[in-house]
Amino acid sequence: MIIFLEDMQEKNKLIEYLNSNDLEAREILDNDQVFIGVIGDLDKIDGDYIKSFKGVKEVKRIKEPFKKVSKIFQPKKTLIDINGEIIGGDKLTVIAGPCSVESEEQIVEIAKAVKKSGANFLRGGAFKPRTSPYSFQGLKYEGLELLKLAKKETGLDIVTEIMSTKDLEIFERDVDIIQVGARNMQNFDLLCELGKINKPILLKRGFSATIEEWLMSAEYIMANGNDKIILCERGIRTFETYTRNTLDLSSVLAIRELSHLPVIVDPSHATGKRDMVLPLAKAGVVVGADGIIVEVHNNPDKALCDGAQSITPENFSQLMEDINALEKIIKKNI
Amino acid sequence: MIIFLEDMQEKNKLIEYLNSNDLEAREILDNDQVFIGVIGDLDKIDGDYIKSFKGVKEVKRIKEPFKKVSKIFQPKKTLIDINGEIIGGDKLTVIAGPCSVESEEQIVEIAKAVKKSGANFLRGGAFKPRTSPYSFQGLKYEGLELLKLAKKETGLDIVTEIMSTKDLEIFERDVDIIQVGARNMQNFDLLCELGKINKPILLKRGFSATIEEWLMSAEYIMANGNDKIILCERGIRTFETYTRNTLDLSSVLAIRELSHLPVIVDPSHATGKRDMVLPLAKAGVVVGADGIIVEVHNNPDKALCDGAQSITPENFSQLMEDINALEKIIKKNI
Amino acid sequence: MIIFLEDMQEKNKLIEYLNSNDLEAREILDNDQVFIGVIGDLDKIDGDYIKSFKGVKEVKRIKEPFKKVSKIFQPKKTLIDINGEIIGGDKLTVIAGPCSVESEEQIVEIAKAVKKSGANFLRGGAFKPRTSPYSFQGLKYEGLELLKLAKKETGLDIVTEIMSTKDLEIFERDVDIIQVGARNMQNFDLLCELGKINKPILLKRGFSATIEEWLMSAEYIMANGNDKIILCERGIRTFETYTRNTLDLSSVLAIRELSHLPVIVDPSHATGKRDMVLPLAKAGVVVGADGIIVEVHNNPDKALCDGAQSITPENFSQLMEDINALEKIIKKNI
Amino acid sequence: MIIFLEDMQEKNKLIEYLNSNDLEAREILDNDQVFIGVIGDLDKIDGDYIKSFKGVKEVKRIKEPFKKVSKIFQPKKTLIDINGEIIGGDKLTVIAGPCSVESEEQIVEIAKAVKKSGANFLRGGAFKPRTSPYSFQGLKYEGLELLKLAKKETGLDIVTEIMSTKDLEIFERDVDIIQVGARNMQNFDLLCELGKINKPILLKRGFSATIEEWLMSAEYIMANGNDKIILCERGIRTFETYTRNTLDLSSVLAIRELSHLPVIVDPSHATGKRDMVLPLAKAGVVVGADGIIVEVHNNPDKALCDGAQSITPENFSQLMEDINALEKIIKKNI
Repeated sequence: MIIFLEDMQEKNKLIEYLNSNDLEAREILDNDQVFIGVIGDLDKIDGDYIKSFKGVKEVKRIKEPFKKVSKIFQPKKTLIDINGEIIGGDKLTVIAGPCSVESEEQIVEIAKAVKKSGANFLRGGAFKPRTSPYSFQGLKYEGLELLKLAKKETGLDIVTEIMSTKDLEIFERDVDIIQVGARNMQNFDLLCELGKINKPILLKRGFSATIEEWLMSAEYIMANGNDKIILCERGIRTFETYTRNTLDLSSVLAIRELSHLPVIVDPSHATGKRDMVLPLAKAGVVVGADGIIVEVHNNPDKALCDGAQSITPENFSQLMEDINALEKIIKKNI
Repeated sequence: MIIFLEDMQEKNKLIEYLNSNDLEAREILDNDQVFIGVIGDLDKIDGDYIKSFKGVKEVKRIKEPFKKVSKIFQPKKTLIDINGEIIGGDKLTVIAGPCSVESEEQIVEIAKAVKKSGANFLRGGAFKPRTSPYSFQGLKYEGLELLKLAKKETGLDIVTEIMSTKDLEIFERDVDIIQVGARNMQNFDLLCELGKINKPILLKRGFSATIEEWLMSAEYIMANGNDKIILCERGIRTFETYTRNTLDLSSVLAIRELSHLPVIVDPSHATGKRDMVLPLAKAGVVVGADGIIVEVHNNPDKALCDGAQSITPENFSQLMEDINALEKIIKKNI
Repeated sequence: MIIFLEDMQEKNKLIEYLNSNDLEAREILDNDQVFIGVIGDLDKIDGDYIKSFKGVKEVKRIKEPFKKVSKIFQPKKTLIDINGEIIGGDKLTVIAGPCSVESEEQIVEIAKAVKKSGANFLRGGAFKPRTSPYSFQGLKYEGLELLKLAKKETGLDIVTEIMSTKDLEIFERDVDIIQVGARNMQNFDLLCELGKINKPILLKRGFSATIEEWLMSAEYIMANGNDKIILCERGIRTFETYTRNTLDLSSVLAIRELSHLPVIVDPSHATGKRDMVLPLAKAGVVVGADGIIVEVHNNPDKALCDGAQSITPENFSQLMEDINALEKIIKKNI
Repeated sequence: MIIFLEDMQEKNKLIEYLNSNDLEAREILDNDQVFIGVIGDLDKIDGDYIKSFKGVKEVKRIKEPFKKVSKIFQPKKTLIDINGEIIGGDKLTVIAGPCSVESEEQIVEIAKAVKKSGANFLRGGAFKPRTSPYSFQGLKYEGLELLKLAKKETGLDIVTEIMSTKDLEIFERDVDIIQVGARNMQNFDLLCELGKINKPILLKRGFSATIEEWLMSAEYIMANGNDKIILCERGIRTFETYTRNTLDLSSVLAIRELSHLPVIVDPSHATGKRDMVLPLAKAGVVVGADGIIVEVHNNPDKALCDGAQSITPENFSQLMEDINALEKIIKKNI
């Protein structure tokens, strides 16, 4: 840690404090600037606290604030094995399905279609986070039952979003990958509870979460004991309104640089535009994401939510073909 | 509602659909553009659904999406009476206290100081939402007990943040204003539960929440039965990093234009900088906020969190003097 | 155009005004809302003017504000032929070279290297826009001479940034593609002058320019007579600070949807990080950009500017191989 | 300067380089981190260059990058005397007038009205930066003549925007304060030229300019010899679309902290909403701006541009009364 001082008012008091915490303080003085290098176990002290000494201009840690999610803590890539499907390994993970589960017929038909084209997991919203309390909120528990039915029919494991800690038990029993939505990325109560169970968690990046905050939310889950975390880039909020959000593909590269956790890309929610889903899904694969999650609907024009961003099973089949071709190239060249 | 069409492919199908929902469709045709004005009870239909018809370019509702929080629904300003203190009325509401409750001595001393200078409510964090799981998370239930002690000593009603629905009962019993933090602004599960109790809710604006989304979160609470909501502007996330966030004072004006709910300003969290708290608090008063919430610490340099943005009881006393002077002017002139 | 009214105060006055401009006004009334559909030649009137009538809540044009850059104006893709190299056609355009021209040896060596690997154009900054007046501002006219030398040696046409209208004549004579930097995207004086010459313009997207504003800046150039414009996505400013800017690959898709102009991607400036250049360049190719522009330096560690984002000639050669492989796939599959 | 190292690969090479530039390098080593404190004249070296050494993770300067605009360079507040009107002193500067000069009658009438209410300067656009080449671009040179006429009639000195270096001579002769618009804040060619004349410059903050970049643009002007600079906060681009931009009043506080230059606030362009102009102008005064600039039109509903944000002379008169009342309070209390 480096502490930058503007003046010397409380320098001695600060050094005393550091020493009293078994930290060594090495002072560097120049004409018009002072800085103090701090050596030792920094976990004991709080940067905010140090900032409160008079004359302290800035406090800079060199080490990233995340621990367990960091590559330094665990250099080996995390592989998550879900009934034989490995997330984070050589093979791309493809999660597909409708925004919302609407009926048995709908979810089973879509599940069969995406399975046929090569999807590894079925997604489908049972509990839907909607900006308005008057919008369709999902079929809830009935939706979960329909997802289980579709799993039974196709063998596809299921991914669905949790919105309340009171549903933890049922999700732990019935769901294969529990999704935390962008709006709940810093719902720390939920994160802590998910850290205590033994289920893979799909952690979406918040609309305005920095890469560091996103990883810190994963750290909450790992710190509580669950290390099966899949990160998901789904677009960030910017000034641009042409797309719903701005897909930040460089975050995938950042995650691969900083963490051992697998990361996937969601082009459907990022853009809100059907025509952008295929090209951006492929771009995600090319930058090195461990997988993609896309919304597929057998009748997008009649979808109860987010129809505008859902692709058809035919589009999805095309996407899988394109991706298979890309994967061969990437293996060889990238 | 106006529907903009790019082509006529499914125009008839669309009009048929509208008619089948007892809506009247008035078509306007020009050389290269078509639009359909829709008249009737629009609540029955979903804009997203309409967008899914082929050829539909855009769907525009004229009416705002919020209902109960809207001035149209209730033109009269909401007044919230908490044991005789009225929020939303002629008198400015001042909420003050430390970021975190740290000890009996600390909270009681600060409570007495801010009470003396004229604060109406005592704030203090018992459960703290922290980016890192390794940072101080608050004294939790012990913190609540200390707040109650400080209330007993000073008579000041207390404001503190809830982070989990499992604490609802205890908050309903012990807390006078329940705060929803920025990170939980779209934790719909929590909002719904808070809608079912009879306690004032202080709803902070999310880091990247539009004014519309913020009001829709208030709508969640009102739709569930609780109309005692105080909105709180606390800065939004922008590209500027000099301040922690960017305080958006125009949002206060927007809320006053759109809603009957009271709105207050939090300059401490918005800027993260002590020296900015006083001037921006006063600016908030001048634009017409119903109150302010500021962090006050008897020893800011030793605060366990957010010391850098806490002002001293002496600063607070000065602020109250300034505000009292401003209030007289505003009454007369503004 | 649709005009949304909140009340009827000036409705008649507004309709009169519209009629006096040979526009037809079709009124649609519902219980609590009024809107007026306007038909005719809307170019005569100003939306801002209409907004100023009392009771007007919103004015919405259906047609995009851009004309000449729009696909509606010219459905056929613009092809720009520069001495036989076609930009916007089937073949990807690759522009490579150092951030700054530093010496004859440097620019010639890099030019030869990128030519060998398959680059179509040589980029190199002679006039450098730098945030600080004390940073290296480029070799200026000497830099232009060195670029000409490198062109002579390699046959590669040159791309370099113009910063002042007083250099127009020399740029028109010596430069093959004139670049307008992000900071000058709305320097309308410069855009108008560039519209009057007959040279291809590379128009970078401003840091905080919407896609619409970016196209409107291209419209300035076209409206003045020059239709040889290449758009360049180079990242937008967002709250995320891990990368210098956030590369917005969906903008490439938007441009292809809205305009006939070619669009290329600059991953070097977008991210500021060498390790992200290759994957994001390839992602740009996959989403359908007409080309890429990348910074290549023979000694990135000693580059006088932006060394941190420059790749080596060896990296570049690898990139070209990867892209060639991708192009084959894309041709077949996408 | 502090250099953070991830590994030791090029540590010795780096220290050698520093020493060869007469800089002292003090190494601090800890188990898993290395940092080097650099002492001496840092102006000689480029942080970007240092970053390019292998193993360098981050380079951090302690000193701000701006020099002449900094309070450290000149602790005394800059006072700009324009024919007896002092900007930056005890008295608030009020600049008022229409968005565009439209006619002699219009500009003279408005000038008289704002003069009567107490404005110190007349603003009015002659050359207008408009997103679309098809929008009204101002009366140009004719507009300048009309401004001079209004000055003659009222004695008010005039403020107007320059868009091209080719107009420098005429602006230097005819205009009292030359405005640089937000879109040209980093038009370095223009800034350099304005640095060479002896006229006050009103430098608006760019839509997406950080406070540091804004000050660096002022530094360009000062570095070229002109130290009469007035900064103007006019709102930044954020995700919020309710207002045109987000007025960042904390930037006024930041400028006062960092620089000796006067800073004023433009609530008209920031919000684009008439009803927000008065309260935000007053808020600007309360946070300590040296002045305000507001759009006033004698017939806002018929303004040729930006009518929606123009206030009437009556509103302006009210604003002046309110501000006078506030100023008395501020003098005494703040």
